[in-house]
Amino acid sequence: MNYENLTPSQARHLIREGVITTQTSGLCHGYAQANLCILPKEYAYDFLLFTQRNPKPCPVLEVTDVGSRSLPQIAPDADVARDFPKYRVWRNGVLTEEVTDIESLWQDDFVSFLIGCSFSFEGELLDADVPVRHIEEGKNVPMYLTNIPCRSAGIFHGNTVVSMRPIPASKIARAVTATAAVPRVHGAPIHIGDPEQIGIHDLAKPDFGDAVTIHPGELPVFWCCGVTPQAAVMAAKPSLAITHAPGHMLITDIKNSSLKE
Amino acid sequence: MNYENLTPSQARHLIREGVITTQTSGLCHGYAQANLCILPKEYAYDFLLFTQRNPKPCPVLEVTDVGSRSLPQIAPDADVARDFPKYRVWRNGVLTEEVTDIESLWQDDFVSFLIGCSFSFEGELLDADVPVRHIEEGKNVPMYLTNIPCRSAGIFHGNTVVSMRPIPASKIARAVTATAAVPRVHGAPIHIGDPEQIGIHDLAKPDFGDAVTIHPGELPVFWCCGVTPQAAVMAAKPSLAITHAPGHMLITDIKNSSLKE
Repeated sequence: MNYENLTPSQARHLIREGVITTQTSGLCHGYAQANLCILPKEYAYDFLLFTQRNPKPCPVLEVTDVGSRSLPQIAPDADVARDFPKYRVWRNGVLTEEVTDIESLWQDDFVSFLIGCSFSFEGELLDADVPVRHIEEGKNVPMYLTNIPCRSAGIFHGNTVVSMRPIPASKIARAVTATAAVPRVHGAPIHIGDPEQIGIHDLAKPDFGDAVTIHPGELPVFWCCGVTPQAAVMAAKPSLAITHAPGHMLITDIKNSSLKE
Repeated sequence: MNYENLTPSQARHLIREGVITTQTSGLCHGYAQANLCILPKEYAYDFLLFTQRNPKPCPVLEVTDVGSRSLPQIAPDADVARDFPKYRVWRNGVLTEEVTDIESLWQDDFVSFLIGCSFSFEGELLDADVPVRHIEEGKNVPMYLTNIPCRSAGIFHGNTVVSMRPIPASKIARAVTATAAVPRVHGAPIHIGDPEQIGIHDLAKPDFGDAVTIHPGELPVFWCCGVTPQAAVMAAKPSLAITHAPGHMLITDIKNSSLKE
């Protein structure tokens, strides 16, 4: 089955049924994908303020009402508790479980934050004839912790996490303009070339996801990544938090093109 | 004195000293202006969520830490309690005072929300040779309550408020592209022509600000307006809220051009 041409609703259904449990890069061409951070209400203000103060790594697509599993704006028939292929459960800042649904963990005081994801713009890169290496190699995108600080908000603080795609030097400008057009899924790169400057010492050892091949003549190009809030959650150590597993996103009903305004 | 060429810091100083008490349209060409909504912390989450869900009328430029009067991001030497020419105090949803500073009213649990303002892009319109009628006529911009609902968040709900500028038909496209480039100060118009469709029955009777002349061959063009949160505050009736008086903004140190990314 060619998962690339599924509708978002079909993809979410296959994910909910446990047929798709993999990372979601390349699924449902043209549709935005979303990162997840669920927190009890007591932490929701600090976290929402953290996203407001750090819009490039944390572009919020939707925030649920307290206790609600519905996403009326970005995916009306979705269920926050079942439609991500993989979830991570964090207790006091420590990863305690990785699960494929969180129905049994659900609490009435949960607030879910859906955050734009750079997977959303990979279709745009491919359309612009810019290669996306981790899709070519069937891997998860490589992600790295940087030394770029986020602005703190209440208990939340930390450094920016970036995703990296190796791009031929002649196509970097095109990659910039294609992604600058979609600020709600991280927008333009935050850094191009020279990983040392942002505290990345070995591209072969990503902090999340998989290493990919960098061909001669290519530069590493770095985009802000929705895993940034996970790093902030790890640092803040709330009693409980649930996130998506890196690379395992929600497919929304929102077309990337609608994120251009 | 030509106030148009003041630096933002000079303008804020003159406002703080009570020398400038007027509306701020046209001041400090090229610099973003900000709307204000101050609420006790107990209301801050609902309000921040309201702005997240309604980014076109409520594009947040900065949120202060609880109790702080500083704006490290948009105007480091500014004082939220003194640097707006005029404030409005709302108790239980009723306007009770209009004052030129709020030092005596300050509370340690206040959170201040600074919201982008369409005055910010008027310089861009003038640079693009698009007329700005209320500046020509020395008036405050006309603002209207519409029938366009905002998405609710907790206690906050209400309809969108728009500002209106009459634009010659031949220049409307230019006005759209010039303002679409600055989404953090409301961005592109929400409606062009036909005020009845959005519930505006008489352009000569704005709900806020002053009526302006519409010349033959011009259409009314409507942008989302930062007075929208005031309408939401009126409707939600929090025990206390402080806003700017319509048209009486904070001049920030942020250039409009920096809001384009």
